[in-house]
Amino acid sequence: MNRYMRKDMSLFLDLYELTMAQGYWEAKRSNHLATFDLFVRGLPENRGYLLNAGLEDVLDYIDNLEFKPQEINYLRKQNLFSTDFLDYLAQFKFSGDIWAMPEGEIFFANEPVIRVTANIIEAQILESFLLNTINLQTMIATKASRVVLSAGDRKVFDFSLRRTHGQDAALKVARSAFIAGFAGTSNVLAGKIYGIPIAGTMAHSYVMCFKRELDSFFSYAKAFPDKTTLLVDTYNTKRGIEAAIKVGLRLRRQGGNLLGVRIDSGDMVVLSKMAPEMLDKAGLMEVKVFASGNLDEYKLRELIRRGAKIDNFGVGTKMGVSQDAPFIDVIYKISEVMDHRGNFLPTMKLSQSKTTLPGRKQVYRIEDSHGRFIRDILALDREDLDGRPLLKEVVRSGKIIYDRPALGKIREYARSNISALPDKYKKLTQPEAFPVVISKQLKELTRDLSLQIRKRQKTK
Amino acid sequence: MNRYMRKDMSLFLDLYELTMAQGYWEAKRSNHLATFDLFVRGLPENRGYLLNAGLEDVLDYIDNLEFKPQEINYLRKQNLFSTDFLDYLAQFKFSGDIWAMPEGEIFFANEPVIRVTANIIEAQILESFLLNTINLQTMIATKASRVVLSAGDRKVFDFSLRRTHGQDAALKVARSAFIAGFAGTSNVLAGKIYGIPIAGTMAHSYVMCFKRELDSFFSYAKAFPDKTTLLVDTYNTKRGIEAAIKVGLRLRRQGGNLLGVRIDSGDMVVLSKMAPEMLDKAGLMEVKVFASGNLDEYKLRELIRRGAKIDNFGVGTKMGVSQDAPFIDVIYKISEVMDHRGNFLPTMKLSQSKTTLPGRKQVYRIEDSHGRFIRDILALDREDLDGRPLLKEVVRSGKIIYDRPALGKIREYARSNISALPDKYKKLTQPEAFPVVISKQLKELTRDLSLQIRKRQKTK
Repeated sequence: MNRYMRKDMSLFLDLYELTMAQGYWEAKRSNHLATFDLFVRGLPENRGYLLNAGLEDVLDYIDNLEFKPQEINYLRKQNLFSTDFLDYLAQFKFSGDIWAMPEGEIFFANEPVIRVTANIIEAQILESFLLNTINLQTMIATKASRVVLSAGDRKVFDFSLRRTHGQDAALKVARSAFIAGFAGTSNVLAGKIYGIPIAGTMAHSYVMCFKRELDSFFSYAKAFPDKTTLLVDTYNTKRGIEAAIKVGLRLRRQGGNLLGVRIDSGDMVVLSKMAPEMLDKAGLMEVKVFASGNLDEYKLRELIRRGAKIDNFGVGTKMGVSQDAPFIDVIYKISEVMDHRGNFLPTMKLSQSKTTLPGRKQVYRIEDSHGRFIRDILALDREDLDGRPLLKEVVRSGKIIYDRPALGKIREYARSNISALPDKYKKLTQPEAFPVVISKQLKELTRDLSLQIRKRQKTK
Repeated sequence: MNRYMRKDMSLFLDLYELTMAQGYWEAKRSNHLATFDLFVRGLPENRGYLLNAGLEDVLDYIDNLEFKPQEINYLRKQNLFSTDFLDYLAQFKFSGDIWAMPEGEIFFANEPVIRVTANIIEAQILESFLLNTINLQTMIATKASRVVLSAGDRKVFDFSLRRTHGQDAALKVARSAFIAGFAGTSNVLAGKIYGIPIAGTMAHSYVMCFKRELDSFFSYAKAFPDKTTLLVDTYNTKRGIEAAIKVGLRLRRQGGNLLGVRIDSGDMVVLSKMAPEMLDKAGLMEVKVFASGNLDEYKLRELIRRGAKIDNFGVGTKMGVSQDAPFIDVIYKISEVMDHRGNFLPTMKLSQSKTTLPGRKQVYRIEDSHGRFIRDILALDREDLDGRPLLKEVVRSGKIIYDRPALGKIREYARSNISALPDKYKKLTQPEAFPVVISKQLKELTRDLSLQIRKRQKTK
């Protein structure tokens, strides 16, 4: 059971989803179908791609979505809703269709990552949860994948629990970072729930609880003779490494093995060169250097460029809150709606600055003969184009028909996608924009519909 | 029941809390008491104060903290922990003392906001949860209070659900923002759990589902004859307001009442002046103007300065992720530890850049005769100083002895504290630093202990 979700999430939505639902209900539109696209309006600064994550939670949510009596009672007390409508809600089940990109897929601005076709009330009620879920997990998977790219062949561990935005975020960050290629997490509950490898060293307080740093090291090594990484910067890093060497040599004599030393402050380049030199001289070549403290993809790149000798990184806060882009501009917009005669009519938003693309859409990825990504085509679903379609059917008539892959498979899929994306789109700063082409039919529909809407407004 | 918390949070911690615990256990230190301070190393840029929130969750966590058989089993499978230690964990209960500042208190850098005195293992095991909880809720309460200050006598509503970092964050953001003075939230589940007023209008998709904007407005007004706020910017804002006026006049004839119009895009200053002018001319003086879209405290200040005529603001993403400061530098550091003879010895971290203050401490707030805050004194707990002590005893020997105030009381307390803080410390940019003075005894202890530690390191 690798899931984590409260089951009573039906009221986790913006109030307007419910008031609009009642508006539709009273206007007798509850049988009208509509299609909504969940997509990102524009990529955050310095992001050349987004790494999709969160679908598993979306499907769990759909599976558990119902309004229980105590939830209906709460709504009743608001004096907003009619008895008729509340009776409808009490029977509510999602019965529509969902197409989605798999977790680990790479996507770009304006591409639907989830497409919902359902009666207008059902489609609307999903909005808040879907946005919240895809925003967090995709934002973090993307940020974490940048850290992994920066780290090259060094291992990276998630140390963000203490500064993520609450408990749900801490768990989802661990999962999203693992999808993106992190080697493990310090978050024990995430380890238990998702089966992610857990890792940890020691805190400064541990060292400070003993009279001498060396005593603290020996006591820890005694408890974990072959799993000890010693934090060497509590007082003076050079003396800390000297003490770690004594522990390493004693462990070896006793058949154990010092795993590593951790540096959490100071000039990481200088210290990380000093540490292996001292360790090598003492004959402890196998001891790894572990660095943590204020790291992100930019800092990692800088450290490596300056020749730091670091084997493993612990990356915390700045990854766990996606510090340079703490949200993505994810939105959920209607693209077609059924009229009174049962025909789907494409629709679009056409305000001054924010225009959306109409119609039921699909995304096709064009790859070269080596599987490298060349461009995407954003097209109407009814078009039959070359390329790999990225949206898969995951829910049909309310039933989940998607075989949810294990986390390790998702991680592997993410790795292969990121490696198929050419480097120029993966630059940490000012990456090139991946070409997303609008198909001829979609272009024509957009143009025709814009004209129609403008005309309708004028003649009103 | 105004609580929201999973009960199985014992494994919500960094692995090192448990490995250190086993280190202490094997070193026979499980009876040694220690004191830890939770505090913020430095305020984020443009923050002159922090507004404390999160204590309620901390106390719920303490109340429910135990390692259940399935959690022990997971730990056993890691091949890290001894049977002895796991048996100890299976019996684990927090039995220590906690002093904390109430929610709604204002605090500053280096002031302990929570102080834990317990055996070293218990004190250590709380670390991760406490940091995660205080980080999120204090960060958001602080950000939200800046938005409230900017808004002056206008009302502000939390619209952040869709972009907060997960579900837990969305709920805690709604609660923290309410503490800070927000009038309500769009988050229905937060309304149910915490008793916060809920609010909402409509989305563009609602307007787009009807052939004419006016039809969508009429249908919504029919469903909510005295609770309708109409979104007027889907196509053309001026025409949207004209349509809203038609609805308002019809509602009035039918004994209802149009609450407001909402503007979500475009030049808010121009549009918010146009709207009341048009409404007034039509005799609909009572209709409020509601603005949303990309708002934060800086944007609000700018809009108001430029003369925007807005009654209510919906503030979302940028508040809900604290966009300009998406974490605070909250840490948890040991300040004293019991030796073998049962004496408490003050301790401190003394590395190159990061020094902590030793000893068991209290914070005293000095106020003038009108209750305005003048300065704080950071002192040793045993000192008897003038001023109001901010740390209150909340847990004694593992039992919660604090009478948790209702959310409305916390909100009122926050309001009175913020109004007692002089304006120069509340400026949105480059606020002055509130004076936090270190007492003479604490200064002397810090100096003496630094010398001792340096000496000990040299003679080692």
